[in-house]
Amino acid sequence: MGGYDQTLEPFLWRAETIYPDREVVARTHEGINRYTYAEYADRTRQLANALDGFGIGEGDRVGTFCWNHDRHFETYFGVPNMGAQLHTINPLLPDKHIQHIVEDASDRLIFLDPSLAEKLGSASDPDAFESVEQFVVVGSTVPDVSLEPLTDYESFVSDQSTEYDWPELSEDDMAGMCYTSGTTGKPKGVEYTQQMMWSHTMAMLTPQALGIEDSDVVMPVVPMFHVNAWGMPFTATAAGAKQVFPGPAPEPADLASLIEEEGVTITAGVPTVWLGLLEYMKENEVDLSSLEQIVIGGAAAPKAVIEQYDEFGVDVIHAWGMTETSPVGTVSRLTPALTDAAFDTKVDKWGKQGLIMPGIEFKVVDDDGSEIPHDGEAFGELLVRGPWVTTEYYERPHANETDFDGSWLRTGDIVTVDDDGYIEIVDRAEDVIKSGGEWISSQELENAIMAHEDVSEAAVIGVDHDRWQERPVAMIVVADDVDREMLTDELKTMLQEEYPKWWLPDGFEFIDEIPKTATGKFSKMDLREQYEGKELLEEDAPADAAPEDD
Amino acid sequence: MGGYDQTLEPFLWRAETIYPDREVVARTHEGINRYTYAEYADRTRQLANALDGFGIGEGDRVGTFCWNHDRHFETYFGVPNMGAQLHTINPLLPDKHIQHIVEDASDRLIFLDPSLAEKLGSASDPDAFESVEQFVVVGSTVPDVSLEPLTDYESFVSDQSTEYDWPELSEDDMAGMCYTSGTTGKPKGVEYTQQMMWSHTMAMLTPQALGIEDSDVVMPVVPMFHVNAWGMPFTATAAGAKQVFPGPAPEPADLASLIEEEGVTITAGVPTVWLGLLEYMKENEVDLSSLEQIVIGGAAAPKAVIEQYDEFGVDVIHAWGMTETSPVGTVSRLTPALTDAAFDTKVDKWGKQGLIMPGIEFKVVDDDGSEIPHDGEAFGELLVRGPWVTTEYYERPHANETDFDGSWLRTGDIVTVDDDGYIEIVDRAEDVIKSGGEWISSQELENAIMAHEDVSEAAVIGVDHDRWQERPVAMIVVADDVDREMLTDELKTMLQEEYPKWWLPDGFEFIDEIPKTATGKFSKMDLREQYEGKELLEEDAPADAAPEDD
Repeated sequence: MGGYDQTLEPFLWRAETIYPDREVVARTHEGINRYTYAEYADRTRQLANALDGFGIGEGDRVGTFCWNHDRHFETYFGVPNMGAQLHTINPLLPDKHIQHIVEDASDRLIFLDPSLAEKLGSASDPDAFESVEQFVVVGSTVPDVSLEPLTDYESFVSDQSTEYDWPELSEDDMAGMCYTSGTTGKPKGVEYTQQMMWSHTMAMLTPQALGIEDSDVVMPVVPMFHVNAWGMPFTATAAGAKQVFPGPAPEPADLASLIEEEGVTITAGVPTVWLGLLEYMKENEVDLSSLEQIVIGGAAAPKAVIEQYDEFGVDVIHAWGMTETSPVGTVSRLTPALTDAAFDTKVDKWGKQGLIMPGIEFKVVDDDGSEIPHDGEAFGELLVRGPWVTTEYYERPHANETDFDGSWLRTGDIVTVDDDGYIEIVDRAEDVIKSGGEWISSQELENAIMAHEDVSEAAVIGVDHDRWQERPVAMIVVADDVDREMLTDELKTMLQEEYPKWWLPDGFEFIDEIPKTATGKFSKMDLREQYEGKELLEEDAPADAAPEDD
Repeated sequence: MGGYDQTLEPFLWRAETIYPDREVVARTHEGINRYTYAEYADRTRQLANALDGFGIGEGDRVGTFCWNHDRHFETYFGVPNMGAQLHTINPLLPDKHIQHIVEDASDRLIFLDPSLAEKLGSASDPDAFESVEQFVVVGSTVPDVSLEPLTDYESFVSDQSTEYDWPELSEDDMAGMCYTSGTTGKPKGVEYTQQMMWSHTMAMLTPQALGIEDSDVVMPVVPMFHVNAWGMPFTATAAGAKQVFPGPAPEPADLASLIEEEGVTITAGVPTVWLGLLEYMKENEVDLSSLEQIVIGGAAAPKAVIEQYDEFGVDVIHAWGMTETSPVGTVSRLTPALTDAAFDTKVDKWGKQGLIMPGIEFKVVDDDGSEIPHDGEAFGELLVRGPWVTTEYYERPHANETDFDGSWLRTGDIVTVDDDGYIEIVDRAEDVIKSGGEWISSQELENAIMAHEDVSEAAVIGVDHDRWQERPVAMIVVADDVDREMLTDELKTMLQEEYPKWWLPDGFEFIDEIPKTATGKFSKMDLREQYEGKELLEEDAPADAAPEDD
């Protein structure tokens, strides 16, 4: 009883059936590749035949180590539709993490870009990649690297038949896999069932998420190794939209020319990409008239970026998600109540993580597990659950005990929810400072301190305190010629005006640099380790620095 | 492994969390009822407590026998969210069918409108409705009918607590149930799992279907007993849209006033409703400026209706579905290739059943099971499958053998698919005429014949033929003063111009009236029975009337 299984295959079938002539475009080192959904579908069946011939079958994992292009897109449907599991690997991770990931996933075959072949080769110690029976370079030339056996994609695929009967899969079959970026410890694997990917695709289609139509031209700049480019290639296919893949390491000039020449209407990526395009536009004429929507994720959407694109008639909206949530969970669209709000209010809402998408649920709980009020002030940890939110990690029993609460995923994000329902991240669970039973957002203090023109970088960490459990200490990087004593006084005055007394850091420490993670973010874990046991609190710190005194 | 179960509860939770003040409006005999999603959600929990107190639990069936109003809407989430199964019963069916349906479903409790109480009462023979332990009249006065025990909705619900912890349900739990209208034999039950209803709701949200946004004001005129008003109340809730329920037996004046006063943007119903509104607008000033979209289903969308609403800036789109498909499967939106097409071409596409929605699949097969070409000419039976398409009927093993082909539902609709992917119904499988190994559409011939000004009604049926298997015969109703011989000659000439020779009816029979089904459609089954064995073929019919001769 019930309906037929939820699988990815109908999305490709629909594009091929209704939109055989709609284009898939990719920027490559050799120029623009351009073909239709009809040809694309043929290629996925050729790929399936090739994998079949190699002995890849249902349940086998196939890795990719590629940028955003048409061949990578061929694996998106070609691999899961035949029942194998597509494992996209992030080449930006440290070599030892990549090696761990491939071993952990037991990938049998890996597709890799020539420009990344050296990176993968260098990750390899003699015993590494034992599970991998074939490396396939996605390019015409095979680089000289110590990966074997090594062949090239066209030899692997192009002689195959374009006929292939996709099997009738179960919605519980594994379709995809990604690893978390592992800011704390080794990356953890998240597996996506056919059902999870079907659900995420349908949800992304809704006007509450991206609302992609067949008339859209969709360009994911977010890498296809970052949780399937936020699922955009699947969603665009389901819609029958034209797709544009910007290829390896696109520069602002490349993005500008693709937007202009292909008529891109929706694009998505991290904030730095869109800052870069704005910079480029200061010196170059760029026609953004086709562009309707930029989706920003991966980091907070800076208000200045939202405002500047608004002047070009482009809506910047923010989407929040995680590897664990397939990945999109919230999108910052405006509700009807905000249609007539002041522009500043709108920018404020667009900049938040946004509204939960239909079909999933969240709750925000404090230390006691009680739900916080939705007043934009109280904060707690965000928990989510739903059809495209994982309920466990791959073979990580310990994380499965700590990172889930029944059916709920503990996101590790500390958030507020305002009375319009918008979620905003104020900290990470491991960074929030617990003082006198209340929480202080380290990120808010950091942002306030970094707003001072003399401050290059700042991180605020919690330091053990006998009475208050933890107290905040600011670690600050400045130029040599800055008067540190005067700066400290100015910062104290500034913070006092904006925050309750018990939020004020009990120490201001000047350091040479703030340690970074592999992806360039502040590593407050490393910072805490470096300064563990050192005396950081000022002796004259107010002994009554607790919420009840405020 | 996988995500959390797909259930309806998150849709209500989302509306209450993000849109607590958005309105639910209902026209009643006592005037307009108006409350918010926050209040609505409270009412669903009161209802759940009432059902709980009565002893209704997971897996129990609760019937409704109601028009479109807020109380009926309360059962839409109140019943399935607590784990019971909502069985909406069609009051337009013959009494014996209603009795069969309630017995077959073993409904334990039935909510019914006062205006329908007599209808249900009259359906009841002394032994009928044995499974029903309680009738609840949705209204302030309890009518004098032979249904017992009988109470009223407010007494049942209003003293209950507004707190209720919805259980964590499985997506395989049964959430809904509807019966087919049973044009051939007894109505068949279709059960909807939580997953089917979740899937249909998400799919209906997509721009490829209705694309409902939170700023929309949604008014389902299609009755809530017709497969949950095509799922619109669930979809509108998921979107956080305002909802307007037009109440019992709305007249065109009622619809006009609701559209104007509540700012309706999307509405849906059968063609006669929209024809009625057009008639009304000839004599009355109606402001349709808020209205963006009319969704037509249940019967073909007449081109004249599409054209006339287009003049008011209202898009009329056609949606096709069945009880078995939850119900919507196709929607006639325009693809980008048609954006610049001539208006007539657009009207032609809008009037077709439309494009398959993302997430499900169809195929069209001929007698041999081979897929037909998508050329707009060839036709065959439409088969569909997907997450919101049932794979079996409730306790009907025989129908389950004949009406399904593996995972595919045989819709019984004979369709063409044009090269833009639009599906168009040309006949019903039981009505299509099989002549010389090829199929003739009875509906096409009927429409052509009824286009003659002297013809009141016409039905074309297949009559057994020794050589050609079947041959078409036209059964025609005309006024007494029409010259039948001359008309026959004119019709023959007319049809010859438009259709191949082998399509031409071998007989033209003049009859008093065409038998109708309970819902007013031609009953060609009855017609065939009435004329079985009678000599209907003209003696001079061409012996070579077969496709190969054309």
